[in-house]
Amino acid sequence: MTRVLLTGFDTFAGEASNPSWEAVRLVAAEPGAADLEVTAVRLSCVYGTALDELRSAVERVDPDLVVCVGQAGGRPDVTVERIAINVDDARIPDNAGRQPIDVPIVEAGPAAYFAGLPIKACVAAARAAGVPASVSSTAGTFVCNHVFYGLMHLIATERPTTRGGFVHVPFASEQVADRAVASLPLPAIADALRAIVTTAATRTTDITAQGGSTH
Amino acid sequence: MTRVLLTGFDTFAGEASNPSWEAVRLVAAEPGAADLEVTAVRLSCVYGTALDELRSAVERVDPDLVVCVGQAGGRPDVTVERIAINVDDARIPDNAGRQPIDVPIVEAGPAAYFAGLPIKACVAAARAAGVPASVSSTAGTFVCNHVFYGLMHLIATERPTTRGGFVHVPFASEQVADRAVASLPLPAIADALRAIVTTAATRTTDITAQGGSTH
Amino acid sequence: MTRVLLTGFDTFAGEASNPSWEAVRLVAAEPGAADLEVTAVRLSCVYGTALDELRSAVERVDPDLVVCVGQAGGRPDVTVERIAINVDDARIPDNAGRQPIDVPIVEAGPAAYFAGLPIKACVAAARAAGVPASVSSTAGTFVCNHVFYGLMHLIATERPTTRGGFVHVPFASEQVADRAVASLPLPAIADALRAIVTTAATRTTDITAQGGSTH
Amino acid sequence: MTRVLLTGFDTFAGEASNPSWEAVRLVAAEPGAADLEVTAVRLSCVYGTALDELRSAVERVDPDLVVCVGQAGGRPDVTVERIAINVDDARIPDNAGRQPIDVPIVEAGPAAYFAGLPIKACVAAARAAGVPASVSSTAGTFVCNHVFYGLMHLIATERPTTRGGFVHVPFASEQVADRAVASLPLPAIADALRAIVTTAATRTTDITAQGGSTH
Repeated sequence: MTRVLLTGFDTFAGEASNPSWEAVRLVAAEPGAADLEVTAVRLSCVYGTALDELRSAVERVDPDLVVCVGQAGGRPDVTVERIAINVDDARIPDNAGRQPIDVPIVEAGPAAYFAGLPIKACVAAARAAGVPASVSSTAGTFVCNHVFYGLMHLIATERPTTRGGFVHVPFASEQVADRAVASLPLPAIADALRAIVTTAATRTTDITAQGGSTH
Repeated sequence: MTRVLLTGFDTFAGEASNPSWEAVRLVAAEPGAADLEVTAVRLSCVYGTALDELRSAVERVDPDLVVCVGQAGGRPDVTVERIAINVDDARIPDNAGRQPIDVPIVEAGPAAYFAGLPIKACVAAARAAGVPASVSSTAGTFVCNHVFYGLMHLIATERPTTRGGFVHVPFASEQVADRAVASLPLPAIADALRAIVTTAATRTTDITAQGGSTH
Repeated sequence: MTRVLLTGFDTFAGEASNPSWEAVRLVAAEPGAADLEVTAVRLSCVYGTALDELRSAVERVDPDLVVCVGQAGGRPDVTVERIAINVDDARIPDNAGRQPIDVPIVEAGPAAYFAGLPIKACVAAARAAGVPASVSSTAGTFVCNHVFYGLMHLIATERPTTRGGFVHVPFASEQVADRAVASLPLPAIADALRAIVTTAATRTTDITAQGGSTH
Repeated sequence: MTRVLLTGFDTFAGEASNPSWEAVRLVAAEPGAADLEVTAVRLSCVYGTALDELRSAVERVDPDLVVCVGQAGGRPDVTVERIAINVDDARIPDNAGRQPIDVPIVEAGPAAYFAGLPIKACVAAARAAGVPASVSSTAGTFVCNHVFYGLMHLIATERPTTRGGFVHVPFASEQVADRAVASLPLPAIADALRAIVTTAATRTTDITAQGGSTH
């Protein structure tokens, strides 16, 4: 049995819902693999607060695997993030009105942490489930990256046996039916997350597969 | 009972499948409304030939409604086409290697025909089914527009009581799982087509709803 | 000597300037060919009013060639429009607050008019001047298409020897320096317009060159 | 007098030219500020080799400031890179046919280095020169990021008083005149680089300005 903590986010930027949280709930309700115990937690879209909530959830759930999930509106596919960087640089205010600019997440922390997931295998698994997916080399500099970096720092400094990573999901089709922007239906997003979680729970080493970007 | 002819296209441009045909087959198998009799026909992606096949199918099926469907790879949503224009201008060769440049489809035909569908109502119906959709003001100048113009010309000159139009669908997610491009899963595309066909079969007048483009 | 009427538009949609008008002024100040007499006129971004202004300018200038120019924010290159369609369908209000939906521009007018320019030769000329350009098959359904259709209808019904067409230009770099969107510097846009006007003034037949779109 | 080493790249991926090298040459020929001594060097688009060439150039020029420049085809503006990451992951083969996958650039090196430039001030300077610019949080995982990381590692381990960073430039308009993709003319790209180099040469601290990304 693998204990999995899955997190999604509150709505932000004027959206009526956040597909990260909607999809995470679907996966927790039906993990899709018998030996996974999945707990879903919704994080505030607020710098600092989100990390406090994540830390509490980690303490409560004591997970083997943590996958944080956020919305990347405009991306056409599910993206498994490669790296978290040590900077908060908000393009828009968070849900508490905070807008930090070029502030380190962890004073004197390393510049970045690589994800602790087999990212290429996770991408391959989502694709095998019929859902477009790829590797991303930037999680941005908003609350998503903040949580991702905070998670990896927590693991690096306090929980060496926990594995962790971050996945960005596109807009849900249901959310943007009246906008001509890329999206995937929530059930497809949930399918991708199931494939990713199952893969991350069972593999410790990655596969060798193309997935870089020229820029 | 409304007799509906739905057409999709053969694969082209090196793709392994064409979501227009895959989705059209799903709708014909399960139209989603009791009083629709849907016949699905696959057209060649060949100038001229596609129109011959369409004409034969129309003669055979004697439809009240014809909705032709094609793939618009790269578009993020299902688009109901507003207008067909009287020109073939191929960016790539068709499946027979033909590449006409700036040739009228119908010598001395009108410059364009507007679709015979309630396009805004069709868009609203697809959205209500949870699938992103919008109006498009260009069907391009390849075989899709060729078939659309040919259909509207056939209706204008020989079948005044038949209604007809054209719908472009995005890449199917299953088709591009390993490419970071916009897509929708085939079942979602089929849902949109069901909503569009049902609406087009039951409404003769359109709704007044925003749906234009600034350019 | 060829008399040329070039029109640009007022600013709209909250922009601080309109590159169509800025570029048109540059061309009128320096047409780049000795035998062109270029008059630049700025049109209101208002349905109806813009066409009244265009008609007055045509009567005053008595041009051999009319090229109307508008902004297509988001397009990456200069686009020579292929066809004007007989519908106003506003996605946003015009500068007078009008927002017509699915209204014909000319009651009982034809569905569309093709441009009266050698569009492929115009595109080739802009490219030869080093400026990215292509053919577009939709001028949208806002005031740009409205003016384009009105111009072609005026020519078709009252001025058979005048040639006319429409060109969309991208955002000016100067206008969007702080936004990550496609743009070209104003001097480059003006260079493209010079090449297009010179070509349209001297050629009556088009070249055969690839330039269609699959959708 | 500030000694500046500017590098561009060889052509790659089938392009006929590389705007990074073309623009860098323009800047070296005319730096635009009296107290800058700019040396331009072209690097091979080859993993490993490019870094050897960079190291040689640094030894020869003994620069106060190093700005490496690469092409980011498809980006609409000039982007100042925020961070270099310790991984080679080639989506396409480099010019020597090498295609490393998920290999560290420096075995046991830190996961990432932040740029040593005042990136927000550099962006502001390019914009003030009328050229669209923004911060980027990923330089990809191809030879550009490879050189960027190698440069920052060289500085961190051997040249503590040298400042360094990386700038990605869009396609040059001249290069893609026949493709409908975002671009800027070479002189505009060179103007942006001049503004960036001058700023980086004269400022050691950054400004506080918005420039993050939500994902």
